[in-house]
Amino acid sequence: MAMSDGLQHAADKMSTSDSSPDAKPDHRAGVAAAIHALQGLIHRTPVMTSSSLDRLLGCHMLFKCEHLQRTGAFKFRGACNAVANLPQATASVCTHSSGNHGAALAAAATARGISAHIVMPDNAVPAKIQAVRAYGGQVHFCAANQHARETAFQNLIEQGHHAVPPYDDWRVIYGQATATIELLQHSSDLDMVLAPVGGGGLISGACLAVQYVQANVAVLAAEPEGAADAHASMQAGKRITELPVNTIADGLRATIGHRNFAVMQQHLQQVLLVNDEEILQATALVWRHMKQLIEPSCATVVAAIKRYPEVFAQQRVGILLSGGNVNVERLIQALV
Amino acid sequence: MAMSDGLQHAADKMSTSDSSPDAKPDHRAGVAAAIHALQGLIHRTPVMTSSSLDRLLGCHMLFKCEHLQRTGAFKFRGACNAVANLPQATASVCTHSSGNHGAALAAAATARGISAHIVMPDNAVPAKIQAVRAYGGQVHFCAANQHARETAFQNLIEQGHHAVPPYDDWRVIYGQATATIELLQHSSDLDMVLAPVGGGGLISGACLAVQYVQANVAVLAAEPEGAADAHASMQAGKRITELPVNTIADGLRATIGHRNFAVMQQHLQQVLLVNDEEILQATALVWRHMKQLIEPSCATVVAAIKRYPEVFAQQRVGILLSGGNVNVERLIQALV
Repeated sequence: MAMSDGLQHAADKMSTSDSSPDAKPDHRAGVAAAIHALQGLIHRTPVMTSSSLDRLLGCHMLFKCEHLQRTGAFKFRGACNAVANLPQATASVCTHSSGNHGAALAAAATARGISAHIVMPDNAVPAKIQAVRAYGGQVHFCAANQHARETAFQNLIEQGHHAVPPYDDWRVIYGQATATIELLQHSSDLDMVLAPVGGGGLISGACLAVQYVQANVAVLAAEPEGAADAHASMQAGKRITELPVNTIADGLRATIGHRNFAVMQQHLQQVLLVNDEEILQATALVWRHMKQLIEPSCATVVAAIKRYPEVFAQQRVGILLSGGNVNVERLIQALV
Repeated sequence: MAMSDGLQHAADKMSTSDSSPDAKPDHRAGVAAAIHALQGLIHRTPVMTSSSLDRLLGCHMLFKCEHLQRTGAFKFRGACNAVANLPQATASVCTHSSGNHGAALAAAATARGISAHIVMPDNAVPAKIQAVRAYGGQVHFCAANQHARETAFQNLIEQGHHAVPPYDDWRVIYGQATATIELLQHSSDLDMVLAPVGGGGLISGACLAVQYVQANVAVLAAEPEGAADAHASMQAGKRITELPVNTIADGLRATIGHRNFAVMQQHLQQVLLVNDEEILQATALVWRHMKQLIEPSCATVVAAIKRYPEVFAQQRVGILLSGGNVNVERLIQALV
């Protein structure tokens, strides 16, 4: 995997001094290097359309299908890019994740013969726990709160495992940016790009991608009302991290990251809030009309289009479908 | 959904050029004309692959995604071709269907300003009833037995509506053949083609397509043990129509048609039986690994590959994913 000296230098600096969002790394070079690093490792996912959903929702939607990415979510891009930029001789990586990033890091690390240790809350979706293990990751459970998660993560770091945070990491953000780069390459006439926001990895990547490829495209985020820290942070002009979290969108319960928020403040137009009922209705719309098994976190974007028609009317909207890791066993029971 | 000879006779009378399975129509010309007639009306559906499913099942599978066809099933092809070949000045069509053909005919007819009357059993899947109505079809409920269905269908024919049977009709068979034609055009090096069999529309179309495009490709069918009339008929060398029907695969409860069976006898290698538990497990496999919301009837093919590894080992298998019309409302409840 060829890597420019500059990027290697940047990556080295990140691994040792990646602690500050003020380091002003070269984002453009980072995204360009990620595109290169991920070639042949990731799927170039398809872009789908649905004329029936377009009719129902009154705009033209182009769906970038990251639920069809390896490990079932866009997270594989960031994890792969982080693993491609590890310091020499790294033997093991660790992270904390409600699921999709954990599975992605496990898969990316295992493919390079590196072991992966994943902190997961003990209320994580069973399918996501199974996925982490299936991809070769070692699961370390913790209580389902931020403090327990951070403590467990810190323990793994102190044991010598290299940390790959799920979103507040430039290597990860650059990897996620490649999804939007591909979408813009596929569809050069978008009016806006819309993505869900949890910790902010996907949306900050979208912001950087749009800025470098097609700066006139607006970037918007969709967020559950039950995890509205990105919305609150954008309103306040500073990170708000102490909000209660209660939403069915398990992939979006994370708190917005430092680096992610810094990028969002510069490029994000707005955060649109949706409630869980709207998220479930939107999930049903995509399942019924597109036959794509997306997860509720992913459906927030369609819920936002349905709730705020005035924002999207007649627009060409590029949508990042973030993932499709649902509890299939439970769904299958509902067929019987 | 067996069509008795009496009912068959009634349907035959409706179209003069389609009068008898013994009439030796020019199948090659019929399929060629269908390809032409359907251009611009149907989706050319994608062909997907899954390296993880390939690893699990020990062969290379190329999935022709007819669950992404308009109306969510391959049935739209046959319905469109039938509507394209209606006698001049036909004002209305009718059929009987547990769902997918009904929706397809409603959509195909409505698009041409023709009204569509659909006989459905009163235990049909609610989502399929809603779909028929959403596409502009008029639903006529009957009791869930063969006699009631035939009587209701006969009544509609006597009221002057042109009959478009769900599968035992050359126009319909030629339309379904185009799915396999596209699959063979996409993948010229298949060893075999595998499709589910209910009434036999899709599989007989596959037989004709393979015969005309690439005759060295084997054609196999997958069928539920709880609706095993195609298997029994192939064994007996004649149509067996009196078997009890009990399977979760609601789209495959039909009895094999006359024309369909005649084609199958010439070209079909074998019918592979699978039980409902295997069908559900296969549905889960496709949902989990491909994120494609296929219906259980459609999953019979994957169930067959899992149950009969000796038939498929290391083969390149073209698979017709027939449809994705499941009860989404009920599935969504399982998320909460």
